[in-house]
Amino acid sequence: MPPAAAEPLTPDRILETTEEVLRRFGPTKATVVDVARALGVSHGSVYRHFPSKAALREAVTDRWLAKSVVMLEQITSAPAGSAPSKLEAWLEALFEAKRHKAGDDPELFATYTVLLAENSGTVEQHLTELIDQLARIIAQGVADGSLAAADVPAAARAVFDATGRFHDPQYAAEWFSPTIVAEFEAVTALVIRGLRA
Amino acid sequence: MPPAAAEPLTPDRILETTEEVLRRFGPTKATVVDVARALGVSHGSVYRHFPSKAALREAVTDRWLAKSVVMLEQITSAPAGSAPSKLEAWLEALFEAKRHKAGDDPELFATYTVLLAENSGTVEQHLTELIDQLARIIAQGVADGSLAAADVPAAARAVFDATGRFHDPQYAAEWFSPTIVAEFEAVTALVIRGLRA
Repeated sequence: MPPAAAEPLTPDRILETTEEVLRRFGPTKATVVDVARALGVSHGSVYRHFPSKAALREAVTDRWLAKSVVMLEQITSAPAGSAPSKLEAWLEALFEAKRHKAGDDPELFATYTVLLAENSGTVEQHLTELIDQLARIIAQGVADGSLAAADVPAAARAVFDATGRFHDPQYAAEWFSPTIVAEFEAVTALVIRGLRA
Repeated sequence: MPPAAAEPLTPDRILETTEEVLRRFGPTKATVVDVARALGVSHGSVYRHFPSKAALREAVTDRWLAKSVVMLEQITSAPAGSAPSKLEAWLEALFEAKRHKAGDDPELFATYTVLLAENSGTVEQHLTELIDQLARIIAQGVADGSLAAADVPAAARAVFDATGRFHDPQYAAEWFSPTIVAEFEAVTALVIRGLRA
């Protein structure tokens, strides 16, 4: 019995292995059979957790996106910190997370770019969660008088849109230009100044 | 003699016809011979004005981009109008121009998207001109005390980057969503507020 099959087959282990298989074979060629083989199980065992190849690809995309949501939630719901400084920290953390994903493992990033295009519903849900975090930070600022926004959800959306160059994967190639950090800081400062009370 | 050849062969007529030929044959198939044939001249006559197919494609791209620069220059150098209202008018005019180009003639827009990718130097030059116009509006506002910016060129670049969703052709598909105008207005208001003295 191959050692991989010794551990119980959890959804998490399947997703971890799916990511590995996608990295190795690329998003066009990777199959459920490849995932099952890498786990040392039958493809039926994988299908018991994920009813289709599409469901598996969607779940792995969701898992990838969820990682940054969890990290940004810690900034959003931190008990200390003013709203403007949280806003800055949040935007910086998002940009850093994206840059790391794109820079540390460009092949996996390219793979996920393909998966994102396939799973627009999952992406939409992810963006809604991020904009909702921004709205909570802005609402905190409005409540304590540090920020001003007549329509908090619209302001959150505007902050997200205005900083798109620093989180939309379409721009990934520009994230390693020598001027990008200065450009990020200029946009962030402009946007936060635009929200100050 | 075909009627088209009756007029003198100016660079402008060649570029006008090149655009037509690109629209008809698409950017992959269109050749200098097609352009010459449409003009009723030999391809040598075209080459006397544009030394290569690449030069012709670059010139037609430049001409297409230059149209909006001229229109935005009128807003930039208008003698009347406060800097904040010029800024708003400039951003609105750019968005409107882009939306019209993308919406009125989607095939030509797609053709130019291919040409833009080919002529990154021309695009870079175009973006520099646009950001320079923004810098002149912001400098006017700093001079009359309506706007505040420690580094005017950096502020101009930040305004341009923050509004990218509404002028970068990568986002063209989103320019016809039912919420796009509200989103544009929210970002524009945020950015202008961020620059106010």
